[in-house]
Amino acid sequence: MSISKHQALQYHKKQKGKIEIQAKTPIASKKDLMLAYTPGVAFVSQEIAKNKRLDREYTNKGNSVAIITDGTAVLGLGNIGPEAAIPVMEGKAAIFKSFAGIDAYPISLNETDPKKLISIIEALAPNYAGINLEDISAPRCFGIERTLRKRLDIPVFHDDQHGAAVIALAALMNALKITKKKAEDIEVVVTGAGAAGIGTTHLLLAYGIKHITLVDKQGILHEKAKGMHKYQREIAKLTKPKRRGGLSEAMRGADVFIGFSVGNVLTQAMVKSMAQKPIVFALANPTPEIDPALAKKAGAYIIATGRSDYPNQINNAYVFPGLFKGLLEAGASEINQESLICAATCLSGLVKKPTPSNIVPSLFDKRVVETIAFSIQNSGVCVCKY
Amino acid sequence: MSISKHQALQYHKKQKGKIEIQAKTPIASKKDLMLAYTPGVAFVSQEIAKNKRLDREYTNKGNSVAIITDGTAVLGLGNIGPEAAIPVMEGKAAIFKSFAGIDAYPISLNETDPKKLISIIEALAPNYAGINLEDISAPRCFGIERTLRKRLDIPVFHDDQHGAAVIALAALMNALKITKKKAEDIEVVVTGAGAAGIGTTHLLLAYGIKHITLVDKQGILHEKAKGMHKYQREIAKLTKPKRRGGLSEAMRGADVFIGFSVGNVLTQAMVKSMAQKPIVFALANPTPEIDPALAKKAGAYIIATGRSDYPNQINNAYVFPGLFKGLLEAGASEINQESLICAATCLSGLVKKPTPSNIVPSLFDKRVVETIAFSIQNSGVCVCKY
Repeated sequence: MSISKHQALQYHKKQKGKIEIQAKTPIASKKDLMLAYTPGVAFVSQEIAKNKRLDREYTNKGNSVAIITDGTAVLGLGNIGPEAAIPVMEGKAAIFKSFAGIDAYPISLNETDPKKLISIIEALAPNYAGINLEDISAPRCFGIERTLRKRLDIPVFHDDQHGAAVIALAALMNALKITKKKAEDIEVVVTGAGAAGIGTTHLLLAYGIKHITLVDKQGILHEKAKGMHKYQREIAKLTKPKRRGGLSEAMRGADVFIGFSVGNVLTQAMVKSMAQKPIVFALANPTPEIDPALAKKAGAYIIATGRSDYPNQINNAYVFPGLFKGLLEAGASEINQESLICAATCLSGLVKKPTPSNIVPSLFDKRVVETIAFSIQNSGVCVCKY
Repeated sequence: MSISKHQALQYHKKQKGKIEIQAKTPIASKKDLMLAYTPGVAFVSQEIAKNKRLDREYTNKGNSVAIITDGTAVLGLGNIGPEAAIPVMEGKAAIFKSFAGIDAYPISLNETDPKKLISIIEALAPNYAGINLEDISAPRCFGIERTLRKRLDIPVFHDDQHGAAVIALAALMNALKITKKKAEDIEVVVTGAGAAGIGTTHLLLAYGIKHITLVDKQGILHEKAKGMHKYQREIAKLTKPKRRGGLSEAMRGADVFIGFSVGNVLTQAMVKSMAQKPIVFALANPTPEIDPALAKKAGAYIIATGRSDYPNQINNAYVFPGLFKGLLEAGASEINQESLICAATCLSGLVKKPTPSNIVPSLFDKRVVETIAFSIQNSGVCVCKY
């Protein structure tokens, strides 16, 4: 299945964007007005003024999430500015509502200074029960997210880091079941040391994968590599790769390739140099790190991409609706790596008999949102709904 | 008609607030996802990146308004904070949608420094086609509004100033028709030199009323009065009142009283001291400056209040839905006093035969929104739809 540029533009033009506001009860009479606005609303405001936590009883805040971007790293398009980011944020809001019944408010900020972004988001926080950061360029995104997590009493989730990580881990869990390999034994190569690459590497480490080599444009990220930013140095310290060199050196004997970089950087020779039953997740969009047909010819045993026209599509949309549904239902104030691992575990468990061309469930399987939401609400032991 | 505290709380609790987000087309299939999100949305973002103005073609921005407060002057309740302001902002959003089909996004900011508020609102601006400032305390509100008007290319409207002014002027126009008095001859007393009092005085001056005495807690605001802030000094310079003293001195011989102050400051003796056929708009909420029954006994000929349980209710909800509808339909970048006067003129004209107990149309008369929207779109000459 594919769609044309013309179809996409028409779809957006015809309905003028993708979301709208609805009044839960239309204001159609004097009584409605007196209840919803003056004088009735004053009683409600006074109650909340006495006890702030009542905002979740009397307003829509408990079901509200802000999708916040500064337009600096939108899709594969880069720094295209806040206006051009609006359609993506509206798209996420439409998915939030359609998949999980969550009211998500798109906010594209005309500001790129990290300190100012942090204080703007702090000022916005009272309206929402969760913050979904989106398409903010690395390395700025890491500091912004960490500072907000510390300062806010609502969960802050950076989809490019954590959403990508959860679905990649879920898919990997099933790929390992098929290939009968163990997490603690495998060698994993991750390319692209940006938000998704670093976020995923952190989650894979937390899951117990011991051998990860993270590769960026300049080569393998190791403790003594040059030109790394703070968050790259930090992850290089954690992964402690033994290898040196570029992608070719990293790939030799690897079990798994997970690409969040750019199109066509993975060659057939590199795939051929991998261990037996190679797992190749070529997730760059719109052009994967290697064409799936070429990867297959070179011996890749399990292949996944970000594209909808191949089997095994890895898409963040699997994750954020259910994740926030769980967070909102629990009234959670934060989200941790254990919950994300549990979400990945339960998501992978929906595929009862994984095969090389079926390592993720259907995105429209209603259980996807339900199982992730349920997994998030049970801290401590990981329990899946299905 | 009246409602109880219990009813108001139940109304809000039962539906958990008053607004929600809807997807214009639910995302129910892979094709929907490809059109609304990846890969289709990239085409749309690229078009807007090339030409920012296309954001109004391809997103909901052209129908979107932000309702922004800092929670410092909410209803008659004062500085109750951003959380407690949310129900009021949601109420306005519900009215915006129900009355005018506008998608209004409530934003209660946890920030009160005027400079920071301005830069936050500037950063938020790309998402909306108009800004409705709300319940921001005076005198901060004046500087914030004026700076934003200069800096932003979308209309900025401070409802407490301009909304109050338009409906008060519309009601006054009909009161003058009934009493056969002329705008240029009358003596008007306005009490409460905050957002509504100063905003209304500016509009009455622009309309051609020559004799206005603005009175605050400390007495009549004149050029040499003490303890005034910048915007009070400015309006005192414009009104040039001849009188000195307090409210009693101001009221002697006045034709019109317009109160935006506090309950029960206007005595029967003061009403008795007015010119013939006194017009008394006692708009303080919830307790008017004088009880309408007492005002009537003291000889007031036409009485209006902010309350729904008396005739002639003066409510901002008459104004903002139609006003923004007109601004959005015109794609306007600003709003001026002439448009506001035209809006008041057309609004008053909906009452074909005004009587002392009928100086404003029904708030649920569909023509209210239509006539105001139409009036705003025709700059230059004022033309009314009805």
